[in-house]
Amino acid sequence: MGHLGKQTIVFQNKPVILETYSTVGPKEGQGPMGSVFDTVLEDELLGEKTWEKAEGMLIKQTVQGLLTKSGKRQEDIQYILCGDLENQINSTQDGIKDFNIPFFGLYGACSTMGESMSLGSIIIGGGYADYVIAGASSHYCTAEKQFRYPLEYGGQRPLTQQWTVTGSGFVLLGKTGTGPKIHSITTGKIVDFNTTDVFNMGAVMAPAAADTILTHLKDTNQKPEDYDAIITGDLGQCGTDILLDLTKQLGTDISAVHQDCGLLIFDNQAQDTHAGGSGCGCSASLFSGYFYQQLKDKKLKKILLVPTGALMSLCSTQQGDNITGIAHAVSIWCE
Amino acid sequence: MGHLGKQTIVFQNKPVILETYSTVGPKEGQGPMGSVFDTVLEDELLGEKTWEKAEGMLIKQTVQGLLTKSGKRQEDIQYILCGDLENQINSTQDGIKDFNIPFFGLYGACSTMGESMSLGSIIIGGGYADYVIAGASSHYCTAEKQFRYPLEYGGQRPLTQQWTVTGSGFVLLGKTGTGPKIHSITTGKIVDFNTTDVFNMGAVMAPAAADTILTHLKDTNQKPEDYDAIITGDLGQCGTDILLDLTKQLGTDISAVHQDCGLLIFDNQAQDTHAGGSGCGCSASLFSGYFYQQLKDKKLKKILLVPTGALMSLCSTQQGDNITGIAHAVSIWCE
Repeated sequence: MGHLGKQTIVFQNKPVILETYSTVGPKEGQGPMGSVFDTVLEDELLGEKTWEKAEGMLIKQTVQGLLTKSGKRQEDIQYILCGDLENQINSTQDGIKDFNIPFFGLYGACSTMGESMSLGSIIIGGGYADYVIAGASSHYCTAEKQFRYPLEYGGQRPLTQQWTVTGSGFVLLGKTGTGPKIHSITTGKIVDFNTTDVFNMGAVMAPAAADTILTHLKDTNQKPEDYDAIITGDLGQCGTDILLDLTKQLGTDISAVHQDCGLLIFDNQAQDTHAGGSGCGCSASLFSGYFYQQLKDKKLKKILLVPTGALMSLCSTQQGDNITGIAHAVSIWCE
Repeated sequence: MGHLGKQTIVFQNKPVILETYSTVGPKEGQGPMGSVFDTVLEDELLGEKTWEKAEGMLIKQTVQGLLTKSGKRQEDIQYILCGDLENQINSTQDGIKDFNIPFFGLYGACSTMGESMSLGSIIIGGGYADYVIAGASSHYCTAEKQFRYPLEYGGQRPLTQQWTVTGSGFVLLGKTGTGPKIHSITTGKIVDFNTTDVFNMGAVMAPAAADTILTHLKDTNQKPEDYDAIITGDLGQCGTDILLDLTKQLGTDISAVHQDCGLLIFDNQAQDTHAGGSGCGCSASLFSGYFYQQLKDKKLKKILLVPTGALMSLCSTQQGDNITGIAHAVSIWCE
């Protein structure tokens, strides 16, 4: 069908999600979703000397896991699209360089899984590749040290704060084959809701999520109930409350079908993770490890995955600027 | 035609470059190319309080300039794809947020213009949009303070070092219309040549440029002489010497048709810019301001634009890692 409505593409040749692979850290492995991931790491360093090299190795092992699980060689893959939260997507570059696959580097903060799956789908849908790998990653230690405090400082965490997930998820998209298909994508715009609190990312991302979800439903002429689940990336408790309020105020109640990866991945009480999980690795690992299997098992037949990003930069927040948000929706149907 | 050879797409529905807009800083305006740009700024601050806000304004003015020059409204544009060199592409987010256009954020270091034009072409070529804006930006003051020394420190610059261009270039890609067309793209892989010198970006990027150019020629079964010009992004003098040596050693002499934006934009002797210009804004502004007009005037009929990026991160270089490179080629034909 091509472009539909304001911001949506409905694919005529629907890209197939042929396989996924997920890797998470030990804390994520101890959480309520611990059993769904392909690999749970024993520690956060993966035998490396720095957190950044560790995140690179996390990405490398996840991509290698995906290739092995799907029986593909790196030469079979025409493009890899991915990113992480580090400055200059440092760990992504390090993690994927040895695969020798043409690379598009992305920065969408925690919305990166939505961005990579969207652009990967456009490449496949347009007939420009047979196989594309898309993914995202985050690491608690690289993110906290870069965006907030040195880990050793032990800064007090406000209750609105979320816990950056150490995790990575990658998917193999194909032109043909068996598996859940990407029906449509809705690409987000930058949303500025005048938020400046670096300890409340949920409040930054919720308005962007609301904008993208409502635009998607309007563009495709659907109701929330047409989906078995509308899954936001990492709004956590604060962001989820805001999203449900906002969408209701705007005339659409999504509460019956809404889930949030940031609320699923940890037990906030028992694991002391306050408002929930966050980071690009949160939705990336949970889609790859959990929702993909639910689709394959036909427990869910139609989902809207909406990774959500807070476009926070240390430099701009120190200069007093607002933190803006973005969210990209990927509609996945089991046929 | 779709995917061809190892890394190349030849477009059946060739995206048209309908319009371009370029903005540069005062130093670039005083250089040998000063007269080709749409706007030359009077100072590097654009009335803003910080360099980062200034780069955001540079981007905003360039996108606005492109919309005005092309007679398009922001509602006509389905996607905008762009990036800069700042952490979390901070200024890009700030510069484009008010346009309210669905946004894909990219990080390809100084290869970003190649990445944005490539992905924009895939969207248009696949029939998923009528109009897409693609671009890139860099700013001397934001880049130097982030990657090297505070400007006030006045660090001695080695002769291998380049001068980050304050500049931005954006292009309007369309499905139909009159103008030079994007014939094909060759997407680069990450190339690691064991380089660690943060003051010699040319040496990092040259092997990536060689890899992408030679792959493009092989994939499309062309010789260097089939092009009126093969234009690298910002190799500068050191990188250009390495590129010409490397390609010759690998059996292909590109010296008769090679040009480098980093060598064109400044008078290195008179302007004290050492090895030449650099930054994503270098190839972005020079393609948008100069090469596009040369194509429209039929002075050049067939060019290969190869923006080149050094995937440098302060964190990884401080940890002793190699700096890797990447280059994306865009083949543009005047019919």
